[in-house]
Amino acid sequence: MAKRGETRERLLKTAATLFQSQGYHATGLNQVVAEGRAPKGSLYFHFPGGKEQLAAESLVLSANDVRRRLSGARDLDAALEVFATRLVASGFRDGCPIATVALDAAGDSEPIRVACADAYGSWRDVVVDFLLRQGVSTERAPGLATTVLAAVEGALLLAKTQRDVAPLRQVAADLRVLIEGAK
Amino acid sequence: MAKRGETRERLLKTAATLFQSQGYHATGLNQVVAEGRAPKGSLYFHFPGGKEQLAAESLVLSANDVRRRLSGARDLDAALEVFATRLVASGFRDGCPIATVALDAAGDSEPIRVACADAYGSWRDVVVDFLLRQGVSTERAPGLATTVLAAVEGALLLAKTQRDVAPLRQVAADLRVLIEGAK
Repeated sequence: MAKRGETRERLLKTAATLFQSQGYHATGLNQVVAEGRAPKGSLYFHFPGGKEQLAAESLVLSANDVRRRLSGARDLDAALEVFATRLVASGFRDGCPIATVALDAAGDSEPIRVACADAYGSWRDVVVDFLLRQGVSTERAPGLATTVLAAVEGALLLAKTQRDVAPLRQVAADLRVLIEGAK
Repeated sequence: MAKRGETRERLLKTAATLFQSQGYHATGLNQVVAEGRAPKGSLYFHFPGGKEQLAAESLVLSANDVRRRLSGARDLDAALEVFATRLVASGFRDGCPIATVALDAAGDSEPIRVACADAYGSWRDVVVDFLLRQGVSTERAPGLATTVLAAVEGALLLAKTQRDVAPLRQVAADLRVLIEGAK
């Protein structure tokens, strides 16, 4: 049983890595099985819903990982560093682990769209808590959290195309101004 | 000669539509030829660089189209409406015509990455001009334009996963505060 669980987890982690850098459509199940060093046939055993189920579950895995790191960040700069480090370490291939699949597959698959929306919702909750601790009012915090998350996601996209983390630094500076003004 | 030019343009427009909604990897050249009602073989005649050339040129086409519309927008709300309209009209499939390819292919292809970076750069220039006209200082306008563009791109991503334009409205409200403060 332990071994079965390990194979399942290895398939999920491999899928998460491939989906986030290549997108949903470019990632074949054969590639996931090969890179996950899993026996052929194990994929449909563990994921009877096939590629769609694998993608939805791997998005949850990636989202929880990022949420945990964001929750542990002491301030906005540290939170942005979670993403900047991923970007630079991967040679500007991996930014947000959700965005690539959100753009290339959320329009076609409802389970994938919901997994993406839930991921962003959970990160937004972390930002709301952070803003409240910073002294932003309960009235302003939810809306401002949406803007913070949107600006960071957009900055990751710009940073990837420019191969430069400058957009993340710029967005951080402007968000600080916005947060100060909302206290 | 006119007919040749027409085929080329039809291939480019079809490619732009497919790449933006499905991503680079999911879009096959056969699909472009079929949906573009072009003769087989015409693709490599017009685009000897194949899929990569087709993608890079279709990104330029899409970028110019958006830049023209953004330049014509009288204020921030009208500019955001350019994107919101695309989203809603397409059933939340088409948001930014660059982002999907930027995320799923800019990490693998330098010509595609450069086309994406140039697209965002040209839109950012439009935002800089807008901010200057609004009375933002020449010192603050370039940096703030990056944040405006990032926030709008991220809001389009969130709106797509939520199937709701609310993130665009929220980001617009917060950007107005930021712009007022930078005057």
